[in-house]
Amino acid sequence: MKLFFSPNACSRVVHIALEDAGADVKLVLTDTRAGGQHDPAFRALNPKGRVPVLATDRGVLTEVLAILGYVAQAYPQARLAPLDDPFAFAEMQALNSFLASSVHVTYAHIFRAARYAEDPVAHPSIKATALEALDAHLRYLDGRMKGPWAMGDAYTVADPYLFVMTDWLARDGAGDETRYANLHDYAKRMRDRRAVRKVIAVEDRYRRG
Amino acid sequence: MKLFFSPNACSRVVHIALEDAGADVKLVLTDTRAGGQHDPAFRALNPKGRVPVLATDRGVLTEVLAILGYVAQAYPQARLAPLDDPFAFAEMQALNSFLASSVHVTYAHIFRAARYAEDPVAHPSIKATALEALDAHLRYLDGRMKGPWAMGDAYTVADPYLFVMTDWLARDGAGDETRYANLHDYAKRMRDRRAVRKVIAVEDRYRRG
Repeated sequence: MKLFFSPNACSRVVHIALEDAGADVKLVLTDTRAGGQHDPAFRALNPKGRVPVLATDRGVLTEVLAILGYVAQAYPQARLAPLDDPFAFAEMQALNSFLASSVHVTYAHIFRAARYAEDPVAHPSIKATALEALDAHLRYLDGRMKGPWAMGDAYTVADPYLFVMTDWLARDGAGDETRYANLHDYAKRMRDRRAVRKVIAVEDRYRRG
Repeated sequence: MKLFFSPNACSRVVHIALEDAGADVKLVLTDTRAGGQHDPAFRALNPKGRVPVLATDRGVLTEVLAILGYVAQAYPQARLAPLDDPFAFAEMQALNSFLASSVHVTYAHIFRAARYAEDPVAHPSIKATALEALDAHLRYLDGRMKGPWAMGDAYTVADPYLFVMTDWLARDGAGDETRYANLHDYAKRMRDRRAVRKVIAVEDRYRRG
């Protein structure tokens, strides 16, 4: 399999999950800071023009949430999701879906307001409103933490997503992780994991080029 | 089970899927046009303050995509997803995730720009940019149609979502369904389904009060 990724983009979520699963994956740099997602060869793989893309021998998968579910189901021995319990699996996917549709999208309003309004006059209000929304999202996420991991006692593929969405607080003045005590402790726990340390080190090497 | 819904909100997606599955569900009106999602009893169920909410004897599920996956897995006899094929399941969830994180969110910018910028000066540009993004999303969705249903030959829980996201084009001048020939044919096919006709009729009765 090949993972098309950009350093510290949301592809890191999938990168960590694949490392957790022990999957054999070749990394392909698609540097979104340099516009790599607009390259015709990449657009042929994913017309939506976004990382991550996971190329498998069955074809291409896109969307963080979908790839996370695939990793959990395709590597059952890694025990990265409650695969035999539809209700518990849905609870995990509800968190992933909130992270994808609300938290991740809110960060995009902060980092890339022009995606949501071409006229620069709109950008200050978009960013201010998104910072308030992000704070509400993170207070909700902080308040729901019940155990060491996102879904409680068992580590799942929701963890790489919750971790990256917490870790992005340090970017572009989006927020202060220490304001969310449970998430702050959680992020420290995640940064101690072997897979997370390895993925960050590998992506940093690509970032430095 | 109880489904907390609002007529013609995104809860309709889940409502159709539950009808497709033959699930025994009691409907509970949470009229978002009247602010029902802010009611303390509802916020106790879902602190995120959004419909749909599916209350089961195991607890509460939120997020359209997660509930769709649950319906497919909890009612396997209804054959609403490729449950034994992780790759095909992930392809379906990739479509659902795109609908949730991109298409659905783009509609929200058109219908409720104030959610994304408190200052009204930002709203015209937000709406104009979202209308362009919606057109790009729908052209992509139109171009990927390969069969009668969203995922090809087999009807899945992605169909209620793709249908509702197409059907919303008629709202508030968001677009013109006939510009997207494949989606237009598809929406007609969906409107002919017994489950879709029943759900629309039931929700219309609640809407009229």
